[in-house]
Amino acid sequence: MPPVVSVIGKKNCGKTTLIEKLIPELKSKGLRVGTIKHHVHEFEMDIPGKDTWRHKKAGAHTVALSSPENVGIISSTDGDISPEELLWRYFSNMDFVIMEGYKKSSMPKIEIYRSSLHPTPLDTDHTLIATVSDVTLEKNVPGFALDDISSLADYLIHKLKITQRKNSAEKSLPDSNVSVLVRGEKVTLSTSQQNHIDLLIHSMISTSFPDNTDVKGAEYYRETKKENE
Amino acid sequence: MPPVVSVIGKKNCGKTTLIEKLIPELKSKGLRVGTIKHHVHEFEMDIPGKDTWRHKKAGAHTVALSSPENVGIISSTDGDISPEELLWRYFSNMDFVIMEGYKKSSMPKIEIYRSSLHPTPLDTDHTLIATVSDVTLEKNVPGFALDDISSLADYLIHKLKITQRKNSAEKSLPDSNVSVLVRGEKVTLSTSQQNHIDLLIHSMISTSFPDNTDVKGAEYYRETKKENE
Repeated sequence: MPPVVSVIGKKNCGKTTLIEKLIPELKSKGLRVGTIKHHVHEFEMDIPGKDTWRHKKAGAHTVALSSPENVGIISSTDGDISPEELLWRYFSNMDFVIMEGYKKSSMPKIEIYRSSLHPTPLDTDHTLIATVSDVTLEKNVPGFALDDISSLADYLIHKLKITQRKNSAEKSLPDSNVSVLVRGEKVTLSTSQQNHIDLLIHSMISTSFPDNTDVKGAEYYRETKKENE
Repeated sequence: MPPVVSVIGKKNCGKTTLIEKLIPELKSKGLRVGTIKHHVHEFEMDIPGKDTWRHKKAGAHTVALSSPENVGIISSTDGDISPEELLWRYFSNMDFVIMEGYKKSSMPKIEIYRSSLHPTPLDTDHTLIATVSDVTLEKNVPGFALDDISSLADYLIHKLKITQRKNSAEKSLPDSNVSVLVRGEKVTLSTSQQNHIDLLIHSMISTSFPDNTDVKGAEYYRETKKENE
């Protein structure tokens, strides 16, 4: 799972603007950045390409729109997906992920506060790692001025140990037969190690598997226990 | 990988309309249906929630918008993602996937043709499994009338062996420690089998892994070789 921070703050205090400024700052340091926004209420499906929208309206569970430069996905869910699952499922090849609107999660947080807009900041807990404000806040964490995005970026990189991933797990997947990913990073296995795992799992499942279906196309997962990383 | 069919046909012949009619027909039989639309040209990012759009414009590689009922993702890609990779990545828990616009893929295809709009149908090959048209086509595959969606759905279910997945791989992932998925279906392992795999892989990677990082959060993949299923 990549390092992650959640930007929190009261309504209209500039969370999205802060994220908009942070992204290019981090990108200029060679980092691949993802973002996750949480909506409490339902949103209207509208990936461009009205065809996809029509597919979804007709009852498709998951729709994808694929082009040479981007892929868009809309998928039905049973209730909120946890930030951990979103990260695991869609962000394993990012260097860093910025979230907006997950006030109650256990992720590290930055609070943004403007004294001109609200009389008091949020109540925050030990997950707060920085504040961004037009005034000095008594929060026992480093505080940054609203326009000092560069210092904030440097602090985050240091504090959350953000580094460029040399081997994107996603990119390296097609190269070998058996891959082991540890927190999204590929661990190199020798051919004989790959063969051992392959044979072991093959022999195990061939006893449980109902018919002679070819199991060479199997995908083996050992799933991430929800740990606080 | 779920069974899949691609709907092909000349411009404006009604591909999306056909898909719109097929989805509820298949859904009424208890099937979970996904769709994939291929765009040759770039599309404008626009998942609802202008904040997400702003994140993407600011340079985020992947953005997600999560709500209690849906999740939307826009992710940058280096060139077209193959249909196989899209299916593997985003559609493993579907019963059936309908594609639109993958004329050159090796997937089974349905051609839709209207004699009132075009003088001739497409040139098709052995991947064609059905036609839908206002006239009888000499294509050596079953032909269906434009309004006979029910028969087309029954034919597809039989021809492509579409069934309701009892154990969605995605749903069952959080239940146990080690899971083996064969073509997206979970194969039951005893606790001792799970422990064997866990121990084996743990011992292998602990020799290759650079430091004392806890590998309990590892994810093990044995990847699907691109097979024609």
